[in-house]
Amino acid sequence: MSYRAPVADIRFVLNELAGLNEVGALPGYEDVNPELADAILEEAAKLAENVIAPLNKVGDQHGNKLSDGIVTTAPGFKSAYQQFSENGWVSLRTPTEFGGQGMPALIAMATEEMWCAANVAFSLCPLLTLGAFEALEHHASDELKATYLPKMASGEWTGTMNLTEPQAGSDLAQVRAKAVPVGDGTYKISGQKIFITWGEHDMVENIVHLVLARLPDAPAGVKGISLFVVPKYLVNADGSLGERNDVSCVSLEHKLGIHASPTCVMSYGDKGGAIGYLVGEAHRGLGYMFTMMNQARLGVGIEGMAIAERAYQQAVAYAKDRVQSRELGSDNPAPAAIIKHADIRRMLMTMKSQIEAQRALTYYAGAALDRAARHPDAAEKQKWQAVVNFLIPIVKGWNTEQVNEITSLGVQIHGGMGFIEETGAAQHLRDARITAIYEGTTGIQAMDLVGRKTASEQGRTARALLAEVEAVAAQLKTQGLAEVGDALDAALVHARASTDFVVGQFEAQPKAVAAGSVPFLKLMGIVLGGWQLGRAALVAKQKLADGDADSAFLEAKLITARFFAVHLLPQVGGLSAAILHGADTVLALPEEAF
Amino acid sequence: MSYRAPVADIRFVLNELAGLNEVGALPGYEDVNPELADAILEEAAKLAENVIAPLNKVGDQHGNKLSDGIVTTAPGFKSAYQQFSENGWVSLRTPTEFGGQGMPALIAMATEEMWCAANVAFSLCPLLTLGAFEALEHHASDELKATYLPKMASGEWTGTMNLTEPQAGSDLAQVRAKAVPVGDGTYKISGQKIFITWGEHDMVENIVHLVLARLPDAPAGVKGISLFVVPKYLVNADGSLGERNDVSCVSLEHKLGIHASPTCVMSYGDKGGAIGYLVGEAHRGLGYMFTMMNQARLGVGIEGMAIAERAYQQAVAYAKDRVQSRELGSDNPAPAAIIKHADIRRMLMTMKSQIEAQRALTYYAGAALDRAARHPDAAEKQKWQAVVNFLIPIVKGWNTEQVNEITSLGVQIHGGMGFIEETGAAQHLRDARITAIYEGTTGIQAMDLVGRKTASEQGRTARALLAEVEAVAAQLKTQGLAEVGDALDAALVHARASTDFVVGQFEAQPKAVAAGSVPFLKLMGIVLGGWQLGRAALVAKQKLADGDADSAFLEAKLITARFFAVHLLPQVGGLSAAILHGADTVLALPEEAF
Repeated sequence: MSYRAPVADIRFVLNELAGLNEVGALPGYEDVNPELADAILEEAAKLAENVIAPLNKVGDQHGNKLSDGIVTTAPGFKSAYQQFSENGWVSLRTPTEFGGQGMPALIAMATEEMWCAANVAFSLCPLLTLGAFEALEHHASDELKATYLPKMASGEWTGTMNLTEPQAGSDLAQVRAKAVPVGDGTYKISGQKIFITWGEHDMVENIVHLVLARLPDAPAGVKGISLFVVPKYLVNADGSLGERNDVSCVSLEHKLGIHASPTCVMSYGDKGGAIGYLVGEAHRGLGYMFTMMNQARLGVGIEGMAIAERAYQQAVAYAKDRVQSRELGSDNPAPAAIIKHADIRRMLMTMKSQIEAQRALTYYAGAALDRAARHPDAAEKQKWQAVVNFLIPIVKGWNTEQVNEITSLGVQIHGGMGFIEETGAAQHLRDARITAIYEGTTGIQAMDLVGRKTASEQGRTARALLAEVEAVAAQLKTQGLAEVGDALDAALVHARASTDFVVGQFEAQPKAVAAGSVPFLKLMGIVLGGWQLGRAALVAKQKLADGDADSAFLEAKLITARFFAVHLLPQVGGLSAAILHGADTVLALPEEAF
Repeated sequence: MSYRAPVADIRFVLNELAGLNEVGALPGYEDVNPELADAILEEAAKLAENVIAPLNKVGDQHGNKLSDGIVTTAPGFKSAYQQFSENGWVSLRTPTEFGGQGMPALIAMATEEMWCAANVAFSLCPLLTLGAFEALEHHASDELKATYLPKMASGEWTGTMNLTEPQAGSDLAQVRAKAVPVGDGTYKISGQKIFITWGEHDMVENIVHLVLARLPDAPAGVKGISLFVVPKYLVNADGSLGERNDVSCVSLEHKLGIHASPTCVMSYGDKGGAIGYLVGEAHRGLGYMFTMMNQARLGVGIEGMAIAERAYQQAVAYAKDRVQSRELGSDNPAPAAIIKHADIRRMLMTMKSQIEAQRALTYYAGAALDRAARHPDAAEKQKWQAVVNFLIPIVKGWNTEQVNEITSLGVQIHGGMGFIEETGAAQHLRDARITAIYEGTTGIQAMDLVGRKTASEQGRTARALLAEVEAVAAQLKTQGLAEVGDALDAALVHARASTDFVVGQFEAQPKAVAAGSVPFLKLMGIVLGGWQLGRAALVAKQKLADGDADSAFLEAKLITARFFAVHLLPQVGGLSAAILHGADTVLALPEEAF
């Protein structure tokens, strides 16, 4: 099943909901406007649809092969990557001084949605490169930047992030990899890292590993972790490649999904130590990693939403094509396309309305990231930074939790064929399942949300956003969209009570708040998603009143917002019950009774 | 990860909730009592734990190989099946006249839960045999019965069900396979059948295929389908095996899960026609198949619950073993086992409470099946038949929808390791995914529930069951369990409003009711599951007051019921909103707007 980039939907979100024009008014983004965005979307759509998407199933079936330390990617990947990087897509959002194109996050993320939907396994390679790029850009010495950044921006070299060790997953305080100073300014790195995405492959000539390790004098815990650059091949003074470094991929994981993305066990220092270069100051590596956390988590939120979109497209195509059983209440006794059956429609609308809510909220967060980075007014800058900080765990957690349900609905719509791998619906379910886990599980996102993002600022940003929801609800009611406005109002009661609980109890009963933290995250996702669809409905209503030509598209926005209001928003009542009253029973059972 | 049959939980449900003693009082079950049940549970647990469960991963990794029409099963399967059948497990519930042991469904299903949890792919082989056995037992001639049933009961031959064709999945009216009378009382069968579970394999010497096909004079649609026995090897008059019949497995499906269960494309009549024998009367085959529908759907409901139990056990083991991050609010700075973290507990309780609710409701339905079959009082018999009919789509639909969420939580608890196939958590997610699809998708269960099972009898059984829920809620409130009683009362308001809607609108607006049918099924699952846990809490409370020795077990029942009351029951508000008000927006979007 082929992928069609949802350009009209993305354009609508960029222009009408996320504020592309406001982003274009920020210093340094003077060239950014809807026309430029359109041109970029059209080009990205072509590459995603014609080059990258067709490799999705190939990659799933073929996976990667490891032999003598060399990882061979699936057929077609190397040439697709070459085209991708030569066309400049790696560096869309990196600064112009290192060969990038300096686009705002808001525009770059629209292309990233397309890469993820087309082929999420493929998309992880440039995504990781970008993460490594940003860590170096913000924290490395000028010399390291000059050596590595231009090659990474051009896509000639790719990047990796080496954090996890067998005993150190979510808990990076447990990192044990070692770094010993050689005396010439370099370090010998040794240790094993696991779950290293695109840690080794044959698509480029060099790979830039960023590695968390401890110096000999490091304090225990998170304050004793330093960050190092460890290139696969050492780089000579003239920029040419030198010796092979003492780092290798010793095995590949056999995973549920994203088969085409090599997940490597990396071994450092088997022959005495890999040469590494310290990034920034000693012992501050974890903080440097957290610099990129918002960006990385937003990226995973995009993955969840994008895979959901791909699964939705496939389900729609099947539902229109598959003929089975007569339509209920119809005079026609002949079997009908299953899209005519009510429950198939319910499933498709459940998918569609959540995807649209997620896209709007995710892009809104992306625009907030741009505003926080560049707004000339300090108060505005600070406000948007708080919005970003608050939204990131929601976008990451909610999108990736829901993609499990959405891709499962995609399978269900296919009936028995959904369970057959050849169909392709199951691949989306398998690929999606990692997104709620990596870059911080949903539980970790939820703790971040209730703690650092809500309680520690007395719920200021949460309440400010809920006030915006209320304003939209009021507008909806004056615009003949009371069904949506009333549903938002009803949900707000629960959202506010839950916020009060989180703010009021976090210090006194942290475990009780933790017990309801994931329900709180989901509740916020639904309420803020409903807010965005409410905003979309207001825009659509206005444009329809103005006689906009694309009435079918706009009418669909109204229906989608109404569906979400009746089918999704009422779920917040159940979630708030769990948040407010659920902690006792979460914690009551003795360990041995499980 | 090994499997431990939850014998204490099963025993509690059998004795305290499902009414094993009442079933033992039915005619023909005079020998049935808790001691006999215990002996059977203990023996089944040993076989499940020691022989069948260890093959679960082997089967997943190895799958089946097809070569020259021969399907070779995974290593160990053949000898495990031999032990299984020689020990008499195939025939536990089949009548004694054909070599069975004549046990009630209630006891047999307890063993079936264990086979499914141990190795669902393996369990499908005897399950299908049992389905074929029952079709023949109820509808075939004495001669056919004498030829096939004893060999099937002994497990020497296995059985299959051949319904689906590429164009005829949920819609069996589209069946095209042909049966032409030879003139000697036999028929020549031809056509292709797909998705045939255990259609070909090497574990036994003969396979008895039941095949739906059309006679030359058959009317179109469902009233022109006849049922035939088509053995893999013809059976001589003396019972020995004769010639190979003209039926073969032409390919195996590559599936998301249950890899060890061969899913065959079966071809009939490539060499002129497979010899088949008509079961019962011509054109009545579909009705015969529906005879077994309750049993088969209950069986799939058991699968869903059983796989959930297996996933839960694996998640608990990991959560107790995996050490990561300090415990919130604890003075101990050392990393703790993750079971100490609140969100891990929330996930485990979400799994555990739903599994226990499902087990209780499923076994209650099984006991109702026994009562409906054997109760000496005609009115009681009729009442219980109505209860069975009502509960079957709920048990099938709710258990299998929830197992998707439960096995996904199992993966989530494993963090990154959950995504690695070696861990085994992902297998449960993959294996479970078929259960909401086969034997009628959730959408089909839900239409059965709102139509034949609710609206067509003006909601009589639904309301009678809800009245029982109300009575339990009242008792809970007098017994110091108001948290559970109040939650049930609140849920009942939604359940009754939804039932009224279904009953009141089904004729006038069938599509509107259909649009909310799956939410209605889920709502009923939650309310009736909560009812069963409420009953369990009442029993536990009484036993604790009586000084029962197993207080830890009983206290856990109280906590589990309370968790379900606060975390699951409040979800019905959102579901009833979708049922009562959701149809418009399900149906509003034009097809081309998807």
